[in-house]
Amino acid sequence: MPVTFSIADLSHRVDAELRDVFQSRDMPLYRMLSYHLAWEDRNGEPELRAGRDRVYGSACLAACAAAGGDIESALPAAAAVEMVNAFAQIHDDVEGGNQHRANRDAVWAVWGPAQAINAGDGMHALARLALLRLMKRGVSPEKTFRATQLMDRASLALCEGRYDDLEAQERINLSVKAYLKMAEAKSGALLGCAMRLGALVAQDDEQAGKAMGECGTKAGLALQVQADADALWSPGGNTVEAAIEVLNKKKLLPVVYAIEKADVRDKRRLGDIYFKRVLGREDIDAIRTLAEGLGAREFCNETVSRLRGEAAAAVDGAGLKADATRSMKKFVDFLFEGR
Amino acid sequence: MPVTFSIADLSHRVDAELRDVFQSRDMPLYRMLSYHLAWEDRNGEPELRAGRDRVYGSACLAACAAAGGDIESALPAAAAVEMVNAFAQIHDDVEGGNQHRANRDAVWAVWGPAQAINAGDGMHALARLALLRLMKRGVSPEKTFRATQLMDRASLALCEGRYDDLEAQERINLSVKAYLKMAEAKSGALLGCAMRLGALVAQDDEQAGKAMGECGTKAGLALQVQADADALWSPGGNTVEAAIEVLNKKKLLPVVYAIEKADVRDKRRLGDIYFKRVLGREDIDAIRTLAEGLGAREFCNETVSRLRGEAAAAVDGAGLKADATRSMKKFVDFLFEGR
Repeated sequence: MPVTFSIADLSHRVDAELRDVFQSRDMPLYRMLSYHLAWEDRNGEPELRAGRDRVYGSACLAACAAAGGDIESALPAAAAVEMVNAFAQIHDDVEGGNQHRANRDAVWAVWGPAQAINAGDGMHALARLALLRLMKRGVSPEKTFRATQLMDRASLALCEGRYDDLEAQERINLSVKAYLKMAEAKSGALLGCAMRLGALVAQDDEQAGKAMGECGTKAGLALQVQADADALWSPGGNTVEAAIEVLNKKKLLPVVYAIEKADVRDKRRLGDIYFKRVLGREDIDAIRTLAEGLGAREFCNETVSRLRGEAAAAVDGAGLKADATRSMKKFVDFLFEGR
Repeated sequence: MPVTFSIADLSHRVDAELRDVFQSRDMPLYRMLSYHLAWEDRNGEPELRAGRDRVYGSACLAACAAAGGDIESALPAAAAVEMVNAFAQIHDDVEGGNQHRANRDAVWAVWGPAQAINAGDGMHALARLALLRLMKRGVSPEKTFRATQLMDRASLALCEGRYDDLEAQERINLSVKAYLKMAEAKSGALLGCAMRLGALVAQDDEQAGKAMGECGTKAGLALQVQADADALWSPGGNTVEAAIEVLNKKKLLPVVYAIEKADVRDKRRLGDIYFKRVLGREDIDAIRTLAEGLGAREFCNETVSRLRGEAAAAVDGAGLKADATRSMKKFVDFLFEGR
């Protein structure tokens, strides 16, 4: 077991398993999936740009190693959660009309929305088949069954969160509390599932699994809050990709907070912006200024810190060995601060 | 075990299981799903129109009973395949822009495409959770595992078939052979899976399961061919719902056959129609006349007969008792001729 889990190293392992899942599948459907996973360009030629971090799969492997398990046995679960994330991204891009994903054209922008919906469905089904490979790695039928159930519940939570997220685009009165519930389902459940599956493969202690699941859920939620703040304020965040969330009227946490804290006059100003049919660049500037003035930026920073603290505390409660606890906390830090 | 399996009776059983799966789920996401399953209208009020046949679930139960099993144990599988069909329908309607489904507005037409894509994803995840309830009905972990694998493979086949189907909308040179391969994946795999799961729950004989799977696959393909022909010729088929497939440039079997058989002049006429950006009513009439003249209608009828024969022969090869064989064949006839 490595003392530190590098996302780069773990991503490499996840990627190899993913490629193995795809190996025998050469129908055109799988070309779209290979494109989304950044192995191929739109013409089916190898993608020459740097490999992609497999955050969800890495989290699964890190949790497995930290819980004293063999990373090899958890590879199918790591590939599966990574594919659930990929399926959700493909559909998210169609739903939001996001033209780009990680500096490349979204699947729907290349093949059209109908094929992209179908490609996401294929990725979803294939994720499940990838998970069932746990049995081939010596994981018991009972654990494989449990893993399937946990992953399906996480997928369902993701859909529940996205429902609320999409629904909130049409309204202005989302509370911070409702936002956090939505974001935990949308962005926490799958990372929680990834870590929980890793722990499940490693050991029988349900308590450790729950603790690692809690760690991933809080970390995933914190990452979403950070992304929300970055969309408005980070230098790297002021790209089309980040701003599109605002233009789509996604209710980012700083905006939700600002609306909750605003006095009648500011509430009306924010409401006027969001009731426009189409938002423009100048609207983003106005939202940013208003939110900053109402303390939304600090609130987001505090929320991220608090959630990261809760994620770390969850690791402490997982009953891991001391060096494993340190490694796992270090891994969580990686998620926020890059490799 | 009933001597005849009535789709109406079996649908009733499937429906009860489906309602049980949904029972504890009252988030708004599930209202969209309840709407699609025709339990509720768009306002969440009970749907007063007649209940819906649950063809896939009924096929699963019929196969289970015919293979000597207890219908009760197969209910989770029946509900699950029915939900996979529902998820595929919800996404199909978005992909094809079909405004109506069974004389009601499609989910996307009520809640918009983004929510409909997400609702389909939720139905897909919930289908898997429904399937895992097999364990609660006393089905072994091994069989439950096998059932999961079979259902995932069928979902994946469905996506592979839809890929080809969507892709064929853009071209004119689809062979009858390629059509049959596409339609078998798109429309045969899930009915095959439904029957195979029923047999799997009932007995350990893999051969019987395969035979029942073959029966369902051939029957599903035959139903698709019949639907294709009905879209052009049946009195009931000349509705907006049926014609939309043609307007969407879906390559229906009669059209595929006609293009394959046509001489250069007729090929060019058909090509001219399909290369239009938008097809109109008069184009459908032209296609119908051309296809009829080239013998496409007879070819479809013959193909349906042949496939129904193959489905019946598969039942003969399943090693069922004589009365069960008769009942199962009768059930397959129901699928074509209504209750």
